[in-house]
Amino acid sequence: MSSSLKIVFHGDNAANFRTGLEDLLHHRHQIVSVSQGIDQAGEKEHFETADVVVGVALNTDMPTPHNMRLLQAPAAGTDGIQRNCLPSKAQLANCFGHENAIAEYVMAALLARHVPLLEADRALRQGEWHYFAGRPGALRTELGAQTLGLLGFGHIAKTLAHRAKAFGMRVVVANRSAVNSPDVDQSFSLSQLSDFMAACDAAVITLPLTDNTRSLVNAEAIDCMRPNALLVNVGRGAVIDESALHEALLKQRIGGAIIDTWYQYPNTDKAVCAPSQFDFASLANVLMTPHMSGWTEGTVQRRRQTIADNINRLSEGQPLLNLIS
Amino acid sequence: MSSSLKIVFHGDNAANFRTGLEDLLHHRHQIVSVSQGIDQAGEKEHFETADVVVGVALNTDMPTPHNMRLLQAPAAGTDGIQRNCLPSKAQLANCFGHENAIAEYVMAALLARHVPLLEADRALRQGEWHYFAGRPGALRTELGAQTLGLLGFGHIAKTLAHRAKAFGMRVVVANRSAVNSPDVDQSFSLSQLSDFMAACDAAVITLPLTDNTRSLVNAEAIDCMRPNALLVNVGRGAVIDESALHEALLKQRIGGAIIDTWYQYPNTDKAVCAPSQFDFASLANVLMTPHMSGWTEGTVQRRRQTIADNINRLSEGQPLLNLIS
Repeated sequence: MSSSLKIVFHGDNAANFRTGLEDLLHHRHQIVSVSQGIDQAGEKEHFETADVVVGVALNTDMPTPHNMRLLQAPAAGTDGIQRNCLPSKAQLANCFGHENAIAEYVMAALLARHVPLLEADRALRQGEWHYFAGRPGALRTELGAQTLGLLGFGHIAKTLAHRAKAFGMRVVVANRSAVNSPDVDQSFSLSQLSDFMAACDAAVITLPLTDNTRSLVNAEAIDCMRPNALLVNVGRGAVIDESALHEALLKQRIGGAIIDTWYQYPNTDKAVCAPSQFDFASLANVLMTPHMSGWTEGTVQRRRQTIADNINRLSEGQPLLNLIS
Repeated sequence: MSSSLKIVFHGDNAANFRTGLEDLLHHRHQIVSVSQGIDQAGEKEHFETADVVVGVALNTDMPTPHNMRLLQAPAAGTDGIQRNCLPSKAQLANCFGHENAIAEYVMAALLARHVPLLEADRALRQGEWHYFAGRPGALRTELGAQTLGLLGFGHIAKTLAHRAKAFGMRVVVANRSAVNSPDVDQSFSLSQLSDFMAACDAAVITLPLTDNTRSLVNAEAIDCMRPNALLVNVGRGAVIDESALHEALLKQRIGGAIIDTWYQYPNTDKAVCAPSQFDFASLANVLMTPHMSGWTEGTVQRRRQTIADNINRLSEGQPLLNLIS
């Protein structure tokens, strides 16, 4: 027994998962796409009558999808979805599948701090052998000799721990519950955050944004870091206190930062937008990227499969995957 | 029973391993350093009377170390050492300890092809969110979805295979003898070189230079590569035919190259020097670095330990490590 559903893809992000979805569905459904603003002809009606919405936002400025039984976020983070806007019979689910991509982003950014490929290339094109093995001043450091700290231990952190361990890194974790993994050398509780921060050569924030995680990494936590340590954020911007991060970089209290998740984002009205109220763009000790770490062909394929799996399950009366309570 | 030895450090490369060596030796020895050219006062006599020489070169232009019992190369490659110049009672040994460093170099260079960190940073500093997740055109590829090929399966290749496997890569090997490793998905013989080359998204040369490996990767082998595949050399330059490599890059027959080991090197007379007779510097599809991949603090520490171990063993009449027949 199965039912035909009305499935609405909402906005630019969801649109990426639309192509090829039918090939993964067991049954025929009505599938429509609506714009970010839900302001084109007929879009409000589509949204209001959807059985399934695929999208990353729900708030009081948007129409109410009265019939909705599944709001499927095509992303891990659901902080753009106001829970009190969900109709009572609607279930909320998210997607992962970004963990390999994010782990590659973090390892690429960390390795780049140790291997000066571009400077070396630029010099050798002039016949200059500055980094030639054996030359004084050419010696570099090894990532594998360092300690990687993971704040949170979900999909992203586990995937990153496995890669870091293969490089010979010491891996430490700070997490709500104790962690027991062959890839982790030491586990801290969140009440031991200071000790955790002090133990890391690079501390990677992988936490979602909740009332408990907002500004968890504040000035006090950053002050515990080693002077040369890096702060990396691939979780959500506001888990690190915005002002404290800017201040630590400006005053060079830490070695630097690799920030992919931010405090301000562009929207349909404003495509160009600074990522913070503070002037990070004038700092040389931050690598700043536009919330891109998880965005790969592999992520899209894996998430499209999750979306299709949940639509198939809803249609066939099976329990849904990745539900968020 | 132990004997006191005269140990001569020859040249710039060896000098890097001199500091701190005494701390690792079991006995007191006479240790002297001589210049690359062995042309300063007293240096020729020191070299001729050495029991142990630490250095990467021996040829007919150099004095003969008649008493030498150990020529300890502080490097893996011993192609600068002419075997017929070795006194009959001298043993030749090399050092490894560079494998972690080289694996980091290769993984950094490969990851950089997939994660456009610098372009993204440059854009976001202008408020431009070009690579923002969900944006059309922002999708990148994953290294983990690709196949890494290793030509040779010694220290470097094994270390690299382990890291690549942790990223989820498919790992294939071409080697003289069959390879059986949990990190390797498929093993080719050297007579199947064409099939091996055709299977790789990135083919990494890790071979030393011998009569059998010189120009092993010739125009015919390169022609078997996928149009987007990368050729990586961290072994010895001349394992890839110089003209064939330049031609393949110039005509864009392959995706690109990452070349750390070259055809021409600087020397004491000539500090600035092009790495090839061909004009690689004008090509955009090559990352060219100055034989730097193995040169880290970790490599120096591990090699210094190997040098000390062999001096201790020689002094104590124990069998030597890392002997090259």
